[in-house]
Amino acid sequence: MSGAAGHEQLERREDYPHRRVFPTRWDDDDAFGHLNNTVYYSAMDTTITGWLLGQEDLGLLDGGFMPVVVRSSCTYRQSVSYPDVLEVGLRSTEVGRSSMTYDLGIFRQADGALVARGSWVHVAVDRASGRPAPVPDALRARLATIAG
Amino acid sequence: MSGAAGHEQLERREDYPHRRVFPTRWDDDDAFGHLNNTVYYSAMDTTITGWLLGQEDLGLLDGGFMPVVVRSSCTYRQSVSYPDVLEVGLRSTEVGRSSMTYDLGIFRQADGALVARGSWVHVAVDRASGRPAPVPDALRARLATIAG
Amino acid sequence: MSGAAGHEQLERREDYPHRRVFPTRWDDDDAFGHLNNTVYYSAMDTTITGWLLGQEDLGLLDGGFMPVVVRSSCTYRQSVSYPDVLEVGLRSTEVGRSSMTYDLGIFRQADGALVARGSWVHVAVDRASGRPAPVPDALRARLATIAG
Amino acid sequence: MSGAAGHEQLERREDYPHRRVFPTRWDDDDAFGHLNNTVYYSAMDTTITGWLLGQEDLGLLDGGFMPVVVRSSCTYRQSVSYPDVLEVGLRSTEVGRSSMTYDLGIFRQADGALVARGSWVHVAVDRASGRPAPVPDALRARLATIAG
Repeated sequence: MSGAAGHEQLERREDYPHRRVFPTRWDDDDAFGHLNNTVYYSAMDTTITGWLLGQEDLGLLDGGFMPVVVRSSCTYRQSVSYPDVLEVGLRSTEVGRSSMTYDLGIFRQADGALVARGSWVHVAVDRASGRPAPVPDALRARLATIAG
Repeated sequence: MSGAAGHEQLERREDYPHRRVFPTRWDDDDAFGHLNNTVYYSAMDTTITGWLLGQEDLGLLDGGFMPVVVRSSCTYRQSVSYPDVLEVGLRSTEVGRSSMTYDLGIFRQADGALVARGSWVHVAVDRASGRPAPVPDALRARLATIAG
Repeated sequence: MSGAAGHEQLERREDYPHRRVFPTRWDDDDAFGHLNNTVYYSAMDTTITGWLLGQEDLGLLDGGFMPVVVRSSCTYRQSVSYPDVLEVGLRSTEVGRSSMTYDLGIFRQADGALVARGSWVHVAVDRASGRPAPVPDALRARLATIAG
Repeated sequence: MSGAAGHEQLERREDYPHRRVFPTRWDDDDAFGHLNNTVYYSAMDTTITGWLLGQEDLGLLDGGFMPVVVRSSCTYRQSVSYPDVLEVGLRSTEVGRSSMTYDLGIFRQADGALVARGSWVHVAVDRASGRPAPVPDALRARLATIAG
């Protein structure tokens, strides 16, 4: 099940099958004294790419596979500032022939508050040709383990 | 006029009433040798905030006004790499009581190709209280000059 | 004791009185597939400023005190790449009337290898006047606890 | 001629044989409202690597050559803030068997003020072996054109 109803219910970090701790840095804050909006995208990218790299036995990155972002978005709910620590929740919501769609929740580690919510679409690209390639079956199976 | 039809037509930088040149940096590229996706958000943020700061006579930033991002998104069409120079087009598409919505086109300066398309929603916030505030009338009038 | 001899001996993270864990991010790597050199400065800045902010009872940052970097340097020994986790060691080596000098060791957390060595000079600046100000006595005492 | 005397005289951008314009970005400023110190290193890296990439006919980056930073430093003289535009001056001060040393002046474009001064040492590394390699003769000749 997914869609708007499911979306609204994912307010707790426990609802995400994969999570990554993401400490902030001093230079993440901008002149307004809050984490600049670009940093949330770095947090999401680091979480997704980290998860992909973590599937080392699949040899994804050696094997000519390259994930290319085709769409991303973020809705911001609360400001955070260095030295807040974030925790990023990740789940796979859809896998197409070449595309992988993710839903992400960004939480403040100290109190578990949801501070931002993002979505992300990767397309599997063949590094040599630069063209879309099928999502490898082994990766498809692995994505099923973080579906929700 | 706006909506899907208008959206599709904005494929040329000339269609945007405000534009900013955005050179890339060596450390913008990630390990795949292309501009990391977060850099497009920096380009959009720099363009919008630069436009706001450029309305100096309005004294926005001295006067307690703070633009806070509540939503952003980007659709990526082509990869670019350092030392490509980008050109960011900006137009105002909607102004609510406290919110300002922008449409952005990101072009490669060398050939004018549209490499990404973004949208952005700012809420005007009172710096002292941290609460949403009305978009000042003088800014509302200025936004009308980049509407499209 | 300090100087060249002392410098050479600080090869282990245990030799530093204050340490901070600094995970890398996907977009920290540049097109050569290694952590871009600027990231080491972010690691040092985050560690020093984090330590200063951590002395909350001194009310440094509320009280008009602003640390301004006047000199920094880094010597690189080994490459690291995302997802390596760094550990930054910090010690205070000299405190002048307005200046604070630090020595930093940057280690790979997994094996404790020293991957870079840095130095850093902050000048205490009065936020209102923008001019150098004496290092507050309370801070001077606190710096003594991380001297080495 | 080089050394302290020569160093002191390089106060004007015109004294540098190669220059690059480096516009700042909104997220370059940190919570103190000034350009974060790491950005100056990005400016230096972008200028040096840009110059190297610009020697396209040498085929450096295709040919297994990789410049690796072994030492960098910066002395900060004045604060700058977005939207200030910087101009980075570059000269080659020494070329060893495998090493290339650069001196950099960072200027504010508007008034030509020297805001920071940096130095940088690259070692030529063979991409396959990861070991230091001789600076190619063709590059050595090219570096002579920006010596000073």
